[in-house]
Amino acid sequence: MKKTVDIESYLPPLLKREHIARIEDNLLLVGDRRKYPWELTHVACRTVDDIAKAIRDMVTQGGGPLQVAMTTLRFVARQIQHGELPDKPNVFIEVANTLKATRPTNTTMARTLQELVAEIGQWYVCDGMRDVHSDDLVGYVDQIIDRKEASFDADYDMMSDIGSHLIPDGTGILTTCFAEHTFLLSLAKATQEGKRFTVYVPETRPYLQGARLTAPSLQAMGLEVFVITDGMGAHFMETSEIGIYMSAADLVTMDGTVVNKVGTLANAICARHYHIPYHVFAMSPDPTKATRDDIVMEERDGNEVLRCGSAPTTLATLKGRYPAFDIIRNEFVEGIITPKGWYKPSEIGKAYRT
Amino acid sequence: MKKTVDIESYLPPLLKREHIARIEDNLLLVGDRRKYPWELTHVACRTVDDIAKAIRDMVTQGGGPLQVAMTTLRFVARQIQHGELPDKPNVFIEVANTLKATRPTNTTMARTLQELVAEIGQWYVCDGMRDVHSDDLVGYVDQIIDRKEASFDADYDMMSDIGSHLIPDGTGILTTCFAEHTFLLSLAKATQEGKRFTVYVPETRPYLQGARLTAPSLQAMGLEVFVITDGMGAHFMETSEIGIYMSAADLVTMDGTVVNKVGTLANAICARHYHIPYHVFAMSPDPTKATRDDIVMEERDGNEVLRCGSAPTTLATLKGRYPAFDIIRNEFVEGIITPKGWYKPSEIGKAYRT
Repeated sequence: MKKTVDIESYLPPLLKREHIARIEDNLLLVGDRRKYPWELTHVACRTVDDIAKAIRDMVTQGGGPLQVAMTTLRFVARQIQHGELPDKPNVFIEVANTLKATRPTNTTMARTLQELVAEIGQWYVCDGMRDVHSDDLVGYVDQIIDRKEASFDADYDMMSDIGSHLIPDGTGILTTCFAEHTFLLSLAKATQEGKRFTVYVPETRPYLQGARLTAPSLQAMGLEVFVITDGMGAHFMETSEIGIYMSAADLVTMDGTVVNKVGTLANAICARHYHIPYHVFAMSPDPTKATRDDIVMEERDGNEVLRCGSAPTTLATLKGRYPAFDIIRNEFVEGIITPKGWYKPSEIGKAYRT
Repeated sequence: MKKTVDIESYLPPLLKREHIARIEDNLLLVGDRRKYPWELTHVACRTVDDIAKAIRDMVTQGGGPLQVAMTTLRFVARQIQHGELPDKPNVFIEVANTLKATRPTNTTMARTLQELVAEIGQWYVCDGMRDVHSDDLVGYVDQIIDRKEASFDADYDMMSDIGSHLIPDGTGILTTCFAEHTFLLSLAKATQEGKRFTVYVPETRPYLQGARLTAPSLQAMGLEVFVITDGMGAHFMETSEIGIYMSAADLVTMDGTVVNKVGTLANAICARHYHIPYHVFAMSPDPTKATRDDIVMEERDGNEVLRCGSAPTTLATLKGRYPAFDIIRNEFVEGIITPKGWYKPSEIGKAYRT
């Protein structure tokens, strides 16, 4: 078995686990992606409701809520130990439901929570477990989360091996939004292999995740990067400056349909026109979603489009629209990189359907 | 002959001729599109160099520089009359060259100036003309510009008849940047004909011409409008909310290649994929440009992408790219609306080649 590398050492500050979410005293600190790259600060949460609000308010986004959710389970175990919450399995189930409701489209957090809460529930149904695993609830929950985190690290490591292999030498790489661990590790490994490339990062309006999160993170990793506007992807395909398009996915259904940040669809359609491959990193294709008809789409407040940071971009009397995600038909996707390996979209169902 | 309507009465404040450029005392006032929609103000220019700087600094854009250039010729005639500039034909030629240099890609202003300056030159080569046309240089130049402006108004009127006819009833119309007179008049006429539609306006980063100029202008005209981000065009095509795509063109070459604001290409490629027609308003296809190889492309300072208004969108240590225009191959264009009528891109050469 391949030795797992120390993922954290490759990652830029924003993606280090202790920045995404950590427990300090009786608080859970959620890394504030809204203030990055100007500040590397946190929002301090006292309760699970505070944490859910932080996720809803976009303090963290993308893969952030998953890590926050796992840390929240550790946090809840500590609150139970201190007598601040009742010592009942229902507490974990309710916490999971509260967190799940914050993100209807990306189902990775929801499914991971379900699995972890079921495992934590063993603590309550089977007294014998207590001696086997740990002396106390906190230790028991920590063990479960540690194991899950290590499993995610192993997935990141494997998926980024595939990603780095797919990156051509001497090309431009287009991405969208903030594709996080798997994409950034792929770039780090491709660089180590001696490949040279430039990353074209659309700013990703309205929240500017590309400009604020991706571009500074790539720069912190020593990579060459250009910030572009969201309408420029096709331009740099036409000029032959882009050789590959790579993004994360918020959801992949069993027919290989990809859901990702709005703006991805236009790039995917244009990439196919220019014969540029589009590869998607998907931590967890969702076996419960057969086709696009099963996707719950999140349309956010259209007013968010009418400002940039705190500054208005036009009159407040106007109306905006903000569909948060695009649904990308499998015909536009060259391949999906998953913890089980690389698949054509049409093969995802066979690999993941339960 | 069709009676020309009073174009100005249909137009929103931003496009009224007196706002785009007007002479007051010894100043030429250029309407400041950078401050719209919050303020309807002007930049006061004392010299032709001031005017050229205002155009370079994006005080006006799109079709604005053409109107500013025509008003500049009136302004120069007055300066000559007041003895502030020498009374020589070379003065007009130099003024035209200074203004032309401010916009290398959009050639309509350059060609219009060339034509007008040649006509003004008649004043100097043929003394007999003076009695026929006017008593003084100012009156002579004003007559020439009045005639040209009336000719543009007639073009706008005719082209917007075609545009309004092309708009389907009960649909969404996608546009890009600020397509000005022809597009806005098309919408006004379509509304008068009883058609109902919603206009989807991409904000058009980095300068936000869509959010700041197009959307408030459409709202001022009483139309239903949604501001969206530049990456959302394909999204609303996929959801069947868009039935037609319409934009202006900064340049059309004789093989039907269209040049327009960056972001247009992605929408045009996606529109073809969804079988949505893309129609282009082109005031003046350029007979001197045979193909895309003859296009001079303007790449602006990449730092402009790193801010929104005066606020930075990311770290100043990053690099941006800002190709101002897209080149759209004729295969993505359904039709081009010109002062000579509607043409398939492949027919433009026959209609316009001299």
